[in-house]
Amino acid sequence: MKVVRTVEQLRESLGQLRSEGRGPVGLVPTMGFLHEGHASLLRRAKETCGIVVMSIFVNPIQFGPGEDYESYPRDEIRDLALAESRGADIVFIPLAQEMYPKPTRTKIKVSGLTDKLCGASRPGHFDGVTTVVTKLINMVQPDYAFFGLKDAQQVAVLSQMVEDLNMNVTIVPCPLIRESDGLALSSRNVYLSAEERRQALVLSRSLREARAAIEDGRVVTASEARELIVSVISESPLADIDYADILSFPALEPIAADLPLTRAEGEIIMALAVRFGRTRLIDNIVFTPKEVAALV
Amino acid sequence: MKVVRTVEQLRESLGQLRSEGRGPVGLVPTMGFLHEGHASLLRRAKETCGIVVMSIFVNPIQFGPGEDYESYPRDEIRDLALAESRGADIVFIPLAQEMYPKPTRTKIKVSGLTDKLCGASRPGHFDGVTTVVTKLINMVQPDYAFFGLKDAQQVAVLSQMVEDLNMNVTIVPCPLIRESDGLALSSRNVYLSAEERRQALVLSRSLREARAAIEDGRVVTASEARELIVSVISESPLADIDYADILSFPALEPIAADLPLTRAEGEIIMALAVRFGRTRLIDNIVFTPKEVAALV
Repeated sequence: MKVVRTVEQLRESLGQLRSEGRGPVGLVPTMGFLHEGHASLLRRAKETCGIVVMSIFVNPIQFGPGEDYESYPRDEIRDLALAESRGADIVFIPLAQEMYPKPTRTKIKVSGLTDKLCGASRPGHFDGVTTVVTKLINMVQPDYAFFGLKDAQQVAVLSQMVEDLNMNVTIVPCPLIRESDGLALSSRNVYLSAEERRQALVLSRSLREARAAIEDGRVVTASEARELIVSVISESPLADIDYADILSFPALEPIAADLPLTRAEGEIIMALAVRFGRTRLIDNIVFTPKEVAALV
Repeated sequence: MKVVRTVEQLRESLGQLRSEGRGPVGLVPTMGFLHEGHASLLRRAKETCGIVVMSIFVNPIQFGPGEDYESYPRDEIRDLALAESRGADIVFIPLAQEMYPKPTRTKIKVSGLTDKLCGASRPGHFDGVTTVVTKLINMVQPDYAFFGLKDAQQVAVLSQMVEDLNMNVTIVPCPLIRESDGLALSSRNVYLSAEERRQALVLSRSLREARAAIEDGRVVTASEARELIVSVISESPLADIDYADILSFPALEPIAADLPLTRAEGEIIMALAVRFGRTRLIDNIVFTPKEVAALV
């Protein structure tokens, strides 16, 4: 595995591997502090690609004022060991100065998809994501780029961008990965106290219970599903809900409050963001509600 | 010369020419109704590139409400003849439906450079330009893209975008081309009545006179130069000034009103937009003011 820190080194290393005719190039953009979610992206990339590039970069322009850019967990040595053991060919780990030699004047804005869910609580966040991902895509020129559905809105926004701008890359959404007790893997889980960590299980449980209730017909509409989710989360005294929403996916359009969810077109997403102390966690589930046999 | 109307045909034709190993690919994006200015871009492209792609597309999203999108002059047959005679290899001439199968939700915004000159009178114009040029660049994947300095602000904005986003293309600015009497070539000149056409000569004359006055020391500061330009243009009763500005180039930063222009760092641009009836014309001159020997 090659570790490169400048765009020039990156292009050089890539040129070398490309000249060996190893097949498609896959990009796995991350902010580091890697966990099994990232490992699953590498695994997926290696299924499709002959050359796998992982980037590790905590992107300042996707953090708002007062967010955790400074304190975001970093562990380069552990990250490089994990990337190597999971078969990355190149790890690109630039300094902020290398990515932004001057403050960027250019931003990519995707309207509509970015004003809800995390976009509503984190104004400008997705402009920072689309901009840095475009930079990484232009640097690597990958055939495929792999993103986890933990950040489902990010996947929707990036897919829209790639389509709108005719970018020469395929966005590959990969499943959200959970701990065995249900907690969605996140680099930010390290912020949680033991008690917060225990109570944070209400997030995945609320989504599981809502899905089950939809599928066995106890819950019919989006507003009922939302009520159930909120009531489960409220069992945790430490949980402070930022949002809990049910939308179409990947269009992220609202679903009429009184429409049976089984009649919604295509997939739906139940997504939430909840604070435990100073830690903001997100979780979601994307699925197609099925008609309940007993009710037909 | 190959004429293609879909992105798929474009990629296919390009793939064929690329496989012949003809060398770098040049892109000449235009809105058609071609004139010698466009011809000079083709000429320049052929000096550097083995494959030259001209695009002809009147881009709806760079026109504001009440602007001339509908009436913008079009003449496909003449354009294709000119492109062929000047050696274009591929002309890409898509319908709006091909470029925007759905309305784009993604826009590229370059801040700072776009809020002055034409950006101030045409809000959103440059977002439309950066977005369509990025789409064309992604479709063609050229090594070089050629733009005329008639639209000097466009060149500055696109160069900034390419740098900020690490795009794999070099923007090549090409000289503004004038009629023998000084009028800057523009597809929009066809809108002018004979009398407007005659009076429109004040534009290039005002810039020439201001430059001469700076170079022989009669005019020292930006505000004096601006006054001279405005007074020359005002000799035309039909001229209605939108803006006349003197800025650094390509940063487009204001120049202190009392600073001798010869002390300004690097190049300056004197740029103007003036209406004659319903026609809005632009013109500019980019140069480095030289110290006047007699004053040293």
